[in-house]
Amino acid sequence: MARLVQKYGGTSVRDIERIRAVAKRVKSAVDAGNQVAVVVSAMAGVTSELAEYTAKISALCDAREYDVVVASGEQAVSGLLAMALQDLGVEARSWLGWQIPIVTDGAHGRARIDSIETAELECRLARGEVVVVAGFQGLGPDNRVTTLGRGGSDTTAVALAAALKADRCDIYTDVDGVYTTDPRIVAKARKLDKITFEEMLEMASVGAKVLHTRAAELAMKHGVRLQVVSSFDDAPGTLVVSEDEILEHELVSSVTYSRDEAKITLLRVADRPGVAAGILGPLADANINVDMIVQNVSAEGDATDLTFTVSEADLERAVSEIKNHREAIGYVDLIWDSNVVKVSVIGVGMRSHAGVARRMFDTLAEKGINIQVISTSEIKVSVLIEEAYTELAVRALHTAYGLDAQ
Amino acid sequence: MARLVQKYGGTSVRDIERIRAVAKRVKSAVDAGNQVAVVVSAMAGVTSELAEYTAKISALCDAREYDVVVASGEQAVSGLLAMALQDLGVEARSWLGWQIPIVTDGAHGRARIDSIETAELECRLARGEVVVVAGFQGLGPDNRVTTLGRGGSDTTAVALAAALKADRCDIYTDVDGVYTTDPRIVAKARKLDKITFEEMLEMASVGAKVLHTRAAELAMKHGVRLQVVSSFDDAPGTLVVSEDEILEHELVSSVTYSRDEAKITLLRVADRPGVAAGILGPLADANINVDMIVQNVSAEGDATDLTFTVSEADLERAVSEIKNHREAIGYVDLIWDSNVVKVSVIGVGMRSHAGVARRMFDTLAEKGINIQVISTSEIKVSVLIEEAYTELAVRALHTAYGLDAQ
Repeated sequence: MARLVQKYGGTSVRDIERIRAVAKRVKSAVDAGNQVAVVVSAMAGVTSELAEYTAKISALCDAREYDVVVASGEQAVSGLLAMALQDLGVEARSWLGWQIPIVTDGAHGRARIDSIETAELECRLARGEVVVVAGFQGLGPDNRVTTLGRGGSDTTAVALAAALKADRCDIYTDVDGVYTTDPRIVAKARKLDKITFEEMLEMASVGAKVLHTRAAELAMKHGVRLQVVSSFDDAPGTLVVSEDEILEHELVSSVTYSRDEAKITLLRVADRPGVAAGILGPLADANINVDMIVQNVSAEGDATDLTFTVSEADLERAVSEIKNHREAIGYVDLIWDSNVVKVSVIGVGMRSHAGVARRMFDTLAEKGINIQVISTSEIKVSVLIEEAYTELAVRALHTAYGLDAQ
Repeated sequence: MARLVQKYGGTSVRDIERIRAVAKRVKSAVDAGNQVAVVVSAMAGVTSELAEYTAKISALCDAREYDVVVASGEQAVSGLLAMALQDLGVEARSWLGWQIPIVTDGAHGRARIDSIETAELECRLARGEVVVVAGFQGLGPDNRVTTLGRGGSDTTAVALAAALKADRCDIYTDVDGVYTTDPRIVAKARKLDKITFEEMLEMASVGAKVLHTRAAELAMKHGVRLQVVSSFDDAPGTLVVSEDEILEHELVSSVTYSRDEAKITLLRVADRPGVAAGILGPLADANINVDMIVQNVSAEGDATDLTFTVSEADLERAVSEIKNHREAIGYVDLIWDSNVVKVSVIGVGMRSHAGVARRMFDTLAEKGINIQVISTSEIKVSVLIEEAYTELAVRALHTAYGLDAQ
């Protein structure tokens, strides 16, 4: 017997048939003697539809009202799943954010969970009732509905698992686990049985859509045992665990890519202290996230070239911000290119092994792929290359690091 | 300056364009110096869609979960209208049932409002903020979402107007007021400037869809000044007022009809005390409403024929209930017919005038229309006739009572 939190995403509850299937899955966990809390998303597409309404109706877009509107999607599904469970003879009831309450800060649209009141939920779980929680929503200090931002239901699930001291938090989704790379590109991609929190986090940060970054962070912080698993079949998923639970680390556990990248280069910027801050300050003010940053040592001593990447959606705004601050920054020319892809290799094994980056560069060079920008972290190496080479690069790296299935 | 409650139904908020139009209408009331509270329904079709989901997912249909699901429709619209108002520069915020709170009893799916906490709302209204209230929903004693049943947003509006001591409650809808009869049948139908609560109630009870019965009852009880008005044009609507506000009463103010009727006749029932109760008891147990009841004096002394009407939707169930209790009731034969229509004339003027019913019977006789069942109340006469004669009867009565427009 264990206490489980199960989270079902939008595609898993997309229609009545799917919600019924989820109810059956929850029932089997209950029948096996487990205590089960379920966190649900809105039906696939509903949150986007509601968000579109808000965008259409108001240029101002009051985040407090936005939250009222979009939180209604999860509300409906929580009630429907509770009904489907009752229909199978399972005791269940729905819980909205304000009913529990899931107390958040007042940052509407991207609120953070401060605390979850669990006494009543624990009591229900103890007597075998399934607790169905509307994900993505909470109660702000102003007694109003808050939402946690995109991927917020993952965060609800992990926070709830931490608060309930659950034995495991299962993230049910439309993929059956975490892969060594995108199986649509590499036929020999393998599903990983286990992956570390750190790797999961790096994967989320470079665009792999399996688990939301904040949920992974929260799980790591509270030591929540996570599993990413498919709601469409019964195959075992991928366990996300702390590093010491994996005895033998592969050098690299996954190869990922993100096409949502654009590169901006400022040519012949004055080579003096504070110039990078002068460039990045206006971008931060405009709420534009900068990812990779490279500053070349200048040949002539007094000027340098500075390159950075932003998401494709932010490219236009970023360029116009830089142009608006041309005088303050002082550059000779500005070029940009969205025809790029970021390819990354990730693995906690590289902490204790040298030569990981070198193997990456060698492999790409062998295939004649030019590297435009490089950025590294403790357990990740990322390169920016021309977009047309994406599949070639990912396949070559997957093979080079010994990840291909037998 | 006045304090107004405005209620907008589903067709008035059916899409973003319509919600924007509602915001403009609210703004003009604010600009004219009024304090305005707005009650909104869900977008047209949304409540039915959500209700359909609940019916599909569960045969049990837990009313508490049903309420969680369907209340989400009004929630979304309340946020959207608040945003649309803000976009026009009008201070506004949304209020959900649990936030105010609108305290109801625990009868989920058909809850009654016990009280509405108005201190905070009054404070907002006083400083010129528009209060946008999600209709149809409240907070039950179990801290869960309740809904008020069909037409519940009308009830929310009237109850809110009573609690806020509003000067008027305007029910915005897709018709521009209350008519002497259905304009689709009688070209000479006239819009009424005023109608009494009693007439409004009788109209609601015989199937006219303008205002929900409970809302009309509540308005009458609390003396709320009601107006039924179109949200699609600027024509004045119909004021619903107490009887003493109308100086000169017409004998009959409206002719209505309801096709949703079915007639059941038990032939040769034993003519003894308690037999009607023996028939109606099982129907009440099965939650079937019986409307008109007629028992003929029997010619032979020991047996009688008993006829009653139910809604068409209940006919099949009613017949099978009667059959199941045949032995206890003791009748010789059972016949039924759904090919009937109920035509009613309504008017508080008939309290002080004789001959109203007689004029009805004469008029129908002149047209060769056979009356099957008659039922009267203090301010209403209803007859059941063959459905094919509907239009003929309604037009003839409209003329006979002098209601035709000049």
